[in-house]
Amino acid sequence: MEVFHGPSTYEREPSRHPALKINSKEPFNAEPPVDELVRSYVTSVDMFYKRNHGPVPVLEDISLYRLEVGGLASNRCSLSMDAIKQLPKHTVVATIQCAGNRRTAMSMTRKVKGVGWGLAALGNGIWSGARLSDVLEIVGIPKYSRVSAYGGKHVEFVSVDKCKEENGGPYKGSIPLFQATNPEADVILAYEMNGEELSRDHGFPLRVVVPGVLGARSVKWLRNINIIAEECQGFFMQKDYKMFPPSVDWDNVNWGSRRPLMDFPVQCAICSPEDGSYLDGKGKVTVKGYALSGGGRGIERVDVSADGGKTWTEAKLAQGPKSGLGYIPDDDDHRDKWAWVLWEASIEVHLPADIVAKAVDTSANVQAEHVETIWNLRGVLNNSWHR
Amino acid sequence: MEVFHGPSTYEREPSRHPALKINSKEPFNAEPPVDELVRSYVTSVDMFYKRNHGPVPVLEDISLYRLEVGGLASNRCSLSMDAIKQLPKHTVVATIQCAGNRRTAMSMTRKVKGVGWGLAALGNGIWSGARLSDVLEIVGIPKYSRVSAYGGKHVEFVSVDKCKEENGGPYKGSIPLFQATNPEADVILAYEMNGEELSRDHGFPLRVVVPGVLGARSVKWLRNINIIAEECQGFFMQKDYKMFPPSVDWDNVNWGSRRPLMDFPVQCAICSPEDGSYLDGKGKVTVKGYALSGGGRGIERVDVSADGGKTWTEAKLAQGPKSGLGYIPDDDDHRDKWAWVLWEASIEVHLPADIVAKAVDTSANVQAEHVETIWNLRGVLNNSWHR
Ligand SMILES: [Mo]
Ligand SMILES: [Mo]
Repeated sequence: MEVFHGPSTYEREPSRHPALKINSKEPFNAEPPVDELVRSYVTSVDMFYKRNHGPVPVLEDISLYRLEVGGLASNRCSLSMDAIKQLPKHTVVATIQCAGNRRTAMSMTRKVKGVGWGLAALGNGIWSGARLSDVLEIVGIPKYSRVSAYGGKHVEFVSVDKCKEENGGPYKGSIPLFQATNPEADVILAYEMNGEELSRDHGFPLRVVVPGVLGARSVKWLRNINIIAEECQGFFMQKDYKMFPPSVDWDNVNWGSRRPLMDFPVQCAICSPEDGSYLDGKGKVTVKGYALSGGGRGIERVDVSADGGKTWTEAKLAQGPKSGLGYIPDDDDHRDKWAWVLWEASIEVHLPADIVAKAVDTSANVQAEHVETIWNLRGVLNNSWHR
Repeated sequence: MEVFHGPSTYEREPSRHPALKINSKEPFNAEPPVDELVRSYVTSVDMFYKRNHGPVPVLEDISLYRLEVGGLASNRCSLSMDAIKQLPKHTVVATIQCAGNRRTAMSMTRKVKGVGWGLAALGNGIWSGARLSDVLEIVGIPKYSRVSAYGGKHVEFVSVDKCKEENGGPYKGSIPLFQATNPEADVILAYEMNGEELSRDHGFPLRVVVPGVLGARSVKWLRNINIIAEECQGFFMQKDYKMFPPSVDWDNVNWGSRRPLMDFPVQCAICSPEDGSYLDGKGKVTVKGYALSGGGRGIERVDVSADGGKTWTEAKLAQGPKSGLGYIPDDDDHRDKWAWVLWEASIEVHLPADIVAKAVDTSANVQAEHVETIWNLRGVLNNSWHR
């Protein structure tokens, strides 16, 4: 047996926090209670959603771990954890969101296939590790490369888990070479989360973090990096995580007609008061939630309504330690480019309250007013107004 | 009088194509008939919308023209047109869209302030000139700089026209230094449009083209480039082109509470059949239009409906010479990153026809279903579903 491997059974799963809401037990898929999300800007390791496709891999001896990097590059290399830790350590505050976040709500209007998720399939972490662009230099690919000398245009990440969707093969995905070699894109190979060694559920000993992109490309339990000519042909790139219109269903889907999703749209959700919670209808209520957008775009504004969208109040936005201005300027001194914004609004509620929230990003993109207009067979990227 | 200057009167305006629809005569603001837009992937110079804030500047002698570059940089320089043409010539296909495009439609739901525009305040051009990043190297600022050695963080472009909004001063605007020095952002100082010398209405002898950003930052009749510490304090950065919610009107607007708009959201419009044109209700109708998104994001899909949004047909997308696939992949070989997509759909129409179009960009952002939800006092960035 290899020193680093994906088991076939669930006998060696890590322990998890009992407050997590389990959407699927095997493989383990769980999200925290929604009010946990707005408790702190950085989501704790315990409360960070877990999204697995098979049993959690096991590393028998970290001193024997090797990351294999090769493919259409001048060199190949095999890096121990010590070698990876010798590279400059880079830290990124980044929110990772599952493309299926808020799927259950989309499913209610018309059935979709996929693990059900409430609105907590995301979390904001502090990720530290080596820059992917530094690792690619070791195999002879310079920064800001669009094509390698050997014709490579994509960088593939391969895990060691055993996924049903891959017929027992490992989870994999790829990103364009230009994003991988662009230090500004902040793609890292993380061995720490929130200042601690990465936990097993989050990809121990090493995972990719691709900021501003669907969680699906931030491959956990990383073993291989391959420089390849075309985008990765794995299931999660070719038969999943693509965007179809409401008119396409399982009887007429043509997966080859679409590109793999990367970047995600503007999103927000109300975390407190929780849906269905008791409101006594007297005076002001404080409403709290999160908002984020893909591709490094910021949040311009969050609007909150207590009357189903007839009148709106603007929320106050905050990004943890970088907060304090009336708005969040577009520069690194004032904003965590890849992270969510937590927001809060005090609104007058009359019963029956009908609380709605929607965000606008810095590109002036808006959320979909009705979920029906963005319904898609896989139930991905539900960014409709949160009601 | 300076050799390059903005007149105070409208006696030396260039001639214009008689088919243009004039929204304001002095200053001249005009757009083409909408069916012109979908006639060709590249918009002709004549039919490209004109958006001026004062009389068109006059250059008495091109041999005496100088671009002055200075501010928080190691050097300053004064470049003749010959010197600018000695730099590597770079060509970018880019759509420039006025932030006020489709303002008239927004104004119909509630009055806004600003020049009225139909849906043709945009055009797709082939722009050639020097890379801004190459010019900035001449004054000692390297590629990929966030801050210059002297504390510069923004690059200001100053014209020579006389704008009422600037109390007779010149039009100006700025972009972040990082965008200006990033060759991938494709910001150019253009002296050619569609292979011809730039015309007076479009900024002769030199203009900025900032791809993926509101037209307002692509300053025409460029005379000065200043490296500055904070974003430009001109009218068009501070008192215009900002995004406010529908609840903010002229009696409660606080301009300081918002950032200047740069990137723009996903957009599309129907150009043929034209609004109000005669449909006989028998069989299929071919519907044509344009779609684009900001920040280099592509178009994933355009949906067209003949029944007011009950049922939808997916349009065929094309980007001129780069067309031919079922979808437009995300790489430079297959896509003009900064350009619009022209689309076409054949749909069955029953009278009364209620044709609607909406686009989805490659980040899965969608257009606003109703214009009322994105109304803003300046009437900018109307990207509601086109009905
Ligand atoms: Mo996911
Ligand atoms: Mo504009």
